[in-house]
Amino acid sequence: MNFGSDNYAGAHPAITASLANRASGYAEAYSTSDLDLEVQREFSAIFEREVAVFYVATGTAANCLALASVAKPGGIVLAHHEAHIVVDECGAPEFLTGQTRITPVKGRHGKMDITELRRQAERIAGLDVHGGRLNAISVTQPTESGTVYSLDELDAIAKVAKEQNIPLHMDGARFANGLVSLGCSPAEMTWKRGVDMLSFGGTKNGCWCAEAVVLFDPEKAHEFAFIQKRAAQLLSKSRFVSAQFEAYFDNGLWLDNARHSNKMAADLADGFSRSASSRLVRQPQTNELFVLLKNNNVERLEAEGVVFLRWPGSDEVEIRDDELLCRFVTSFETKSEDINCFLSLIL
Amino acid sequence: MNFGSDNYAGAHPAITASLANRASGYAEAYSTSDLDLEVQREFSAIFEREVAVFYVATGTAANCLALASVAKPGGIVLAHHEAHIVVDECGAPEFLTGQTRITPVKGRHGKMDITELRRQAERIAGLDVHGGRLNAISVTQPTESGTVYSLDELDAIAKVAKEQNIPLHMDGARFANGLVSLGCSPAEMTWKRGVDMLSFGGTKNGCWCAEAVVLFDPEKAHEFAFIQKRAAQLLSKSRFVSAQFEAYFDNGLWLDNARHSNKMAADLADGFSRSASSRLVRQPQTNELFVLLKNNNVERLEAEGVVFLRWPGSDEVEIRDDELLCRFVTSFETKSEDINCFLSLIL
Amino acid sequence: MNFGSDNYAGAHPAITASLANRASGYAEAYSTSDLDLEVQREFSAIFEREVAVFYVATGTAANCLALASVAKPGGIVLAHHEAHIVVDECGAPEFLTGQTRITPVKGRHGKMDITELRRQAERIAGLDVHGGRLNAISVTQPTESGTVYSLDELDAIAKVAKEQNIPLHMDGARFANGLVSLGCSPAEMTWKRGVDMLSFGGTKNGCWCAEAVVLFDPEKAHEFAFIQKRAAQLLSKSRFVSAQFEAYFDNGLWLDNARHSNKMAADLADGFSRSASSRLVRQPQTNELFVLLKNNNVERLEAEGVVFLRWPGSDEVEIRDDELLCRFVTSFETKSEDINCFLSLIL
Amino acid sequence: MNFGSDNYAGAHPAITASLANRASGYAEAYSTSDLDLEVQREFSAIFEREVAVFYVATGTAANCLALASVAKPGGIVLAHHEAHIVVDECGAPEFLTGQTRITPVKGRHGKMDITELRRQAERIAGLDVHGGRLNAISVTQPTESGTVYSLDELDAIAKVAKEQNIPLHMDGARFANGLVSLGCSPAEMTWKRGVDMLSFGGTKNGCWCAEAVVLFDPEKAHEFAFIQKRAAQLLSKSRFVSAQFEAYFDNGLWLDNARHSNKMAADLADGFSRSASSRLVRQPQTNELFVLLKNNNVERLEAEGVVFLRWPGSDEVEIRDDELLCRFVTSFETKSEDINCFLSLIL
Repeated sequence: MNFGSDNYAGAHPAITASLANRASGYAEAYSTSDLDLEVQREFSAIFEREVAVFYVATGTAANCLALASVAKPGGIVLAHHEAHIVVDECGAPEFLTGQTRITPVKGRHGKMDITELRRQAERIAGLDVHGGRLNAISVTQPTESGTVYSLDELDAIAKVAKEQNIPLHMDGARFANGLVSLGCSPAEMTWKRGVDMLSFGGTKNGCWCAEAVVLFDPEKAHEFAFIQKRAAQLLSKSRFVSAQFEAYFDNGLWLDNARHSNKMAADLADGFSRSASSRLVRQPQTNELFVLLKNNNVERLEAEGVVFLRWPGSDEVEIRDDELLCRFVTSFETKSEDINCFLSLIL
Repeated sequence: MNFGSDNYAGAHPAITASLANRASGYAEAYSTSDLDLEVQREFSAIFEREVAVFYVATGTAANCLALASVAKPGGIVLAHHEAHIVVDECGAPEFLTGQTRITPVKGRHGKMDITELRRQAERIAGLDVHGGRLNAISVTQPTESGTVYSLDELDAIAKVAKEQNIPLHMDGARFANGLVSLGCSPAEMTWKRGVDMLSFGGTKNGCWCAEAVVLFDPEKAHEFAFIQKRAAQLLSKSRFVSAQFEAYFDNGLWLDNARHSNKMAADLADGFSRSASSRLVRQPQTNELFVLLKNNNVERLEAEGVVFLRWPGSDEVEIRDDELLCRFVTSFETKSEDINCFLSLIL
Repeated sequence: MNFGSDNYAGAHPAITASLANRASGYAEAYSTSDLDLEVQREFSAIFEREVAVFYVATGTAANCLALASVAKPGGIVLAHHEAHIVVDECGAPEFLTGQTRITPVKGRHGKMDITELRRQAERIAGLDVHGGRLNAISVTQPTESGTVYSLDELDAIAKVAKEQNIPLHMDGARFANGLVSLGCSPAEMTWKRGVDMLSFGGTKNGCWCAEAVVLFDPEKAHEFAFIQKRAAQLLSKSRFVSAQFEAYFDNGLWLDNARHSNKMAADLADGFSRSASSRLVRQPQTNELFVLLKNNNVERLEAEGVVFLRWPGSDEVEIRDDELLCRFVTSFETKSEDINCFLSLIL
Repeated sequence: MNFGSDNYAGAHPAITASLANRASGYAEAYSTSDLDLEVQREFSAIFEREVAVFYVATGTAANCLALASVAKPGGIVLAHHEAHIVVDECGAPEFLTGQTRITPVKGRHGKMDITELRRQAERIAGLDVHGGRLNAISVTQPTESGTVYSLDELDAIAKVAKEQNIPLHMDGARFANGLVSLGCSPAEMTWKRGVDMLSFGGTKNGCWCAEAVVLFDPEKAHEFAFIQKRAAQLLSKSRFVSAQFEAYFDNGLWLDNARHSNKMAADLADGFSRSASSRLVRQPQTNELFVLLKNNNVERLEAEGVVFLRWPGSDEVEIRDDELLCRFVTSFETKSEDINCFLSLIL
């Protein structure tokens, strides 16, 4: 039973099959082959408007290059204090944007508090050349806490960006998981809310390596091509990504995978709720679940070979001396039997 | 018939099969899974010493991060004036090293002239803080002209690096093609010659996306891990690269693929030699071939659907008014029938 | 009456005289003239050990290049949340170090809380390659709040740096003001406490433009020379800085200037303490003073032509509706009569 | 007798007097004081149009920030192969622009060959995303060889920039020397020729430290302010630069100084022309002179205490075995007696 991370899973059989299907024959490199163009059109269809799509190697690259595309000297980006760009990218945002500073915004359940966001935005907007200037807002959807911003919450964030006339970036490393959780369309969760640039992740949801920057203003594509190549993120055999996305979108596999992993997490949560020896930190809305387990339970589960992560402290929940905060992540690969088997260990 | 580039080919069936074979089940991410470690050990075995291996997304990334790992303020790198880092990386070397300047070194057939290399090295070594300082030499093996440095030539280059006490980088985007051309061991072509960092490319030789930086001093691994992550080049599902390299090295597939594509280029060259309407620029030693074709021949071949590139002017060959310089590249995918069929068009 | 900033003052007559004195005749450029070397020796004498000194154009440059000299990929620097590098440098630290992230540390009165500092240091030291790594601590002495760390407090900070084996930087933009406040020697306030790099400011204390990076390990000088030149901070007619520092150090002018401005601030504070319509935020230990004034008083003083700054909100003091937070700064130029005249307006 | 460099001279007495004159009293910092604004208006008057002026610490900073203000990802700048940004800035252009590559353009007498410039511009304009893109042309006026582009030659360069729709930068570290040599107005030598950004140097012509970036499109000022501050080049007591420029422009001191130093160089050249033991490389048009001297003469002059530089080899002149290439630079400080005295040594 492995709940370590959704990137501990491999690739969905349909993804692998598509790679095999597209492996032979010749195709132009650098995102110009017929298949590349076809998948780009598919992105536009999915988002119900013409978009520009750029494949990159990692979610970190997607975030950083999206921010690089709007970076300004002295620029400051606002993001939740637990956002990937804040805690998980080893300085890549500063490095690949040439300097952009990220100012963390507090908020419970992985979401920026809207009052705090506006306060920070207005404070920074009031700075002079010494203090730097507001450059963008980055919102993670779904969040690193397994929660999802509602469309209204996204609207409120976009309103702050509009007030300050700055672009809005969405880190969608687990985009599909958020989408099926909200039950809305990709357009509704992004540009209809005011999102300008999207990091669109497929890797955690059944692909091998399929991350893209989606620009909702295709006029930015020309500049972005240079940003991408200069950062060494222009993949040569681009069809290996296109083949993954081809299968990913085909027959809604991406949504099915996301629904499945969300469901598995919900089932896990259900079990934890019924267990006397665990306390859910919050109800998961996607495939990430945080729970407080008794110390001895943690050790017992680990001894049984269950894989999950002990998580560093949280501001949001009081951890008793005999408890540990733990993270469980499900994926397309998680089986109902795994859940049942796991629950039998804790119930 | 497609001779456009070796990255126009897809993936070798064995590579695809390996991806399928490794797709299910869980594995740790970020190059720490059992398979990752196994492939890293395989690299060490192939190079006959303990090496540190880091997967990156592109050959450009491999080159730039290898140079970043030795970059110094004011640093200047010497490389052939047609090296990939000079003409094909859109400023990525300067960007990802934080500033490194590349000074081109002239030389025929894609190889740095050793006298000119030493002259430049000594000139730069004589500069003060205004002029900057010598930082590294980068050698492309095989070269962008389809040629291969002999072991003696590599020794001569390494001697200059040693004289100046600077590291030596090898851009091995087509490493295998060079290796089988020389008929030596990987160790003999690299660290036994004085190479410190190697860009090891698998993508052009039958993989989907398999590029690595190989450091011959494993003590540099700790620092490099931060350089890699900060550049957004730390792949999460690393086993998708490991699975490719697993098959690539298995039973010498990499060498077979390289031998095959070299042979196909040699056969092409043979045909061109026998054709009255073409002039080989030089005998190919790997899978890239440059040839002067009559204008009307070029148009006729293109009309027949043969894919190859019209190449920008060269200093090394006089192009007559009725000729065009063209590049033909073969790959694991090139069939003998393609060659025969093509030769029937020109002979 | 001008209490706007200590950089609103011009230059002390002795500084100007020294510039005139050194204006004629020839001298080598780029910090190699006899006068340059003499002043460098004076720095070593003042600090009671051999130091390396590099002139730069601004205090921001001194801070950023000092941090650049120890920067590592993924590096994180800890500094007080109101430090100049945090709030007043427009992204220059990130830019000139190539990426370094600054994590703010809370603490009252402009000083890092030592418990919080250690907590953050230990937290960051526990991160992996994703989270980045601890790189340096930067301490501002005197602080931006007009306070001074005691030698014991500096020891406590240095202890954290030692525990983590990271360098300690001191932003001494107003170094002399802190020094005379503590009444200790330059050595006692710096390397004897564990400081590795010092931003030594003369501009705010009577010079025109005299800022230096002082490295307590002269072996770092060779590398720093390239860092300085690459950042376009190598001044050609360096003797114009040396001439300033020559006069600055002569007969203890720097200490006299600092004592004077500190005294003027103390006199101001004294007056505010006696005024019913003002509340001192804290007793100034140097030449910066923060005070709460009644709104109508602020307007009246401004109308009288008194120059001072309305200061943005502070976490440390509750501001009543009828009050404004204001900053008053004194300098070598402040006259006792100015203070008396000002006090007559508020008492 | 010192002909080492024009930055070996100190400051003109009028500059020093102006600093003394402006030393007392208060003035706003960061280029916002009355004097700062007055000098900025003077710049506009001199250039016969509204310009934006930014003081920086060094000529290198002026060049690099001017180029940073137009930098684009993948950008390539064309400049003469002996330009300061090519040979004397230790990577600062790449560093401070975030990556810009400089491609050297050949040409005799320090001037870009116009045919070669156009050829390079067209070649780069034909590149794709791999090769990068043309970003700007930088012209040094007067050149590093002591020569001056004629207005027609500047027009020809500007025409190439216009053809490619890229900005034109002028490195005017010795602007005044070029200006008086041509005998035209500042407007005629700059924006009337198509120059967009100018590095305007005063330091080498009698100031202590007075370098400015002049933008001929004042609408770029807002962005530039952030570029300047982020590079740690925003000087606090800006009036110390303004005071220098105030005196520099007053009564045409800058032109007088330049005329004087040019005249001194011409007199030197005259003497060398009459000497059997020296060969002038070319007639100097400004204050830099290159000459071939017999080895034993060089040694004798050095023994006599004459200061000048032995210059590295040149492509343009054949140096005989018994000769050394030497550089002599004059300045406002050079006396006619020095010239006469020197000439008596060689004639």
